[in-house]
Amino acid sequence: MSSPDDPTVADLSEDAILARIFPHLPQAPGTVVPPGDDAAVVLAPDGHVVVSTDVLVEGRHFRREWSSGADVGWRAAAQNLADIAAMGARPTALVVALVAPADLPASWVEGLARGLAAAASPHGAGVVGGDLSGGPAVVVSVTVLGDLEGRVPVRRSGARPGDVVAHAGVRGRSAAGLALLAADRADLDPGLVDSYLRPDPPVGAGAAAARAGASAMLDVSDGLLRDAGRIAGPSGVRIDLDPVEQAFAADLDRLAAVADALVADARGWVLTGGEDHGLLATFPAGTALPAPFRRVGRVLPGDGSASVTVGGSAPEVEGSGWDHFAR
Amino acid sequence: MSSPDDPTVADLSEDAILARIFPHLPQAPGTVVPPGDDAAVVLAPDGHVVVSTDVLVEGRHFRREWSSGADVGWRAAAQNLADIAAMGARPTALVVALVAPADLPASWVEGLARGLAAAASPHGAGVVGGDLSGGPAVVVSVTVLGDLEGRVPVRRSGARPGDVVAHAGVRGRSAAGLALLAADRADLDPGLVDSYLRPDPPVGAGAAAARAGASAMLDVSDGLLRDAGRIAGPSGVRIDLDPVEQAFAADLDRLAAVADALVADARGWVLTGGEDHGLLATFPAGTALPAPFRRVGRVLPGDGSASVTVGGSAPEVEGSGWDHFAR
Repeated sequence: MSSPDDPTVADLSEDAILARIFPHLPQAPGTVVPPGDDAAVVLAPDGHVVVSTDVLVEGRHFRREWSSGADVGWRAAAQNLADIAAMGARPTALVVALVAPADLPASWVEGLARGLAAAASPHGAGVVGGDLSGGPAVVVSVTVLGDLEGRVPVRRSGARPGDVVAHAGVRGRSAAGLALLAADRADLDPGLVDSYLRPDPPVGAGAAAARAGASAMLDVSDGLLRDAGRIAGPSGVRIDLDPVEQAFAADLDRLAAVADALVADARGWVLTGGEDHGLLATFPAGTALPAPFRRVGRVLPGDGSASVTVGGSAPEVEGSGWDHFAR
Repeated sequence: MSSPDDPTVADLSEDAILARIFPHLPQAPGTVVPPGDDAAVVLAPDGHVVVSTDVLVEGRHFRREWSSGADVGWRAAAQNLADIAAMGARPTALVVALVAPADLPASWVEGLARGLAAAASPHGAGVVGGDLSGGPAVVVSVTVLGDLEGRVPVRRSGARPGDVVAHAGVRGRSAAGLALLAADRADLDPGLVDSYLRPDPPVGAGAAAARAGASAMLDVSDGLLRDAGRIAGPSGVRIDLDPVEQAFAADLDRLAAVADALVADARGWVLTGGEDHGLLATFPAGTALPAPFRRVGRVLPGDGSASVTVGGSAPEVEGSGWDHFAR
């Protein structure tokens, strides 16, 4: 349903679409060759570049009736920025590949560019390139680059028994927001819905954790229990989270009313809800935790059995995360 | 149609699919943190990183009945490597986002990884990360990084009147191969079909051109006339290609028999056929052209009219390239 006021991508040439996108994309001071050539050139002052990629697919990661183009752009940028933060690095640049069905309004694509810019600009990251194609569904594939600023990358494998486990960011809000949308009850708590549509990872906390000496870190994208296991496994340790009512009291409070209304389990949202994109890190005992990290558990020796426990016991929740191909 | 011998992606967990892919992916000497963490870390010795992204969509850029997974992996890597070469840089690393429908055989995905490796490894580039999602069609989004090794990036805007225009690589073979497949006559010339399925850009020639002092360069992906205009425009010049029968005699010879059989125009394939991924560059007059570049034209002052001519005149072929959203 195109109109002169709101043409679809099929109404416009590729060059015309790009001309609508470019003005919205953020520039970054480290961009030596900007978009428009075969490739962009970005400063990598550290002599290393950190790189990660994440893809969002319509109907699987978002629905167009729930998420605007700007929401999807924000989310695509935010989850990529979180991956760079999780290495202890500073994001510098993003490139974006967009697959768009013929009926996608050009205004949706402009929104996507605005959302990318809104999420990336505050962190000094520019959008330096992209590609555009037709296709059967909207696919947004973002690759992000980062700079370590002289720091050693913080990997998943460095947790040691005796370390403190700490978390920065919110827990369970994205899952609760999605549950509200699925129940057609967005009106109950628009703030939680916004947490699903536009997750706000603590990007700057990644570099702060690295400076404070974090021994391991990751972006919690698939749920706290599952992702804690992704530190525990490679590190050969057990992660024992503090009781949820203690470690995540503020998150449970925030979710309580909606959990009641939807007859849902706020504890489950906190432990297994995905896509909040908080940072989970371990620090040597005695480290002064950099804000906004707070203690949520401890690292114990691995014993070959459960790699993640809560209050010393196997967690009592169904599932431990989600799988992109689960049926 | 899954079987125990050839499961689909929906039969396997994401981790199980990744476990099938990883062994095929090439490592690179410059990889400091390999796949498996939130992000990879790659050396950027030059202090700059070159970055480009390209997406391939099933039904638009390839058909599964024509292209194997390995063919698609090869092509996705090759066209990205060509973009890095076109800046005068050396490719170092790739990241890959794959969207896969539930019925895609896991063996197809393994083939994709093998094809990526086969195209990237000879150039010293590793695959350092990726993402995987379900979706309605196969989408392969590749981002490639490169290192300038101390050279100044070769942009599209540097051509100057008096420069020589040179080309490295083949012309028209991909278009001819696609025409053979479309006519169901692949048997006529399997070599040309292979040129479509697995384009082989002269990746090393990009750095060689930069060392020789190329003033402008690009990857010819959308057709020679259209892409020549992408040097002429930003440079403010006219590109006058030599007569096709003279500049591209060997390419015309190679295509003649198939053009006859399909009642097609070999000259059109040479001038407007896309996806050969040759390099088009300009050099100051008197430059000893580095192999395999050969002279194909000259740079004239821009006069505000036609930006690309052939033998001094506006080219007599229909169209000037292709558009991803053209109907």
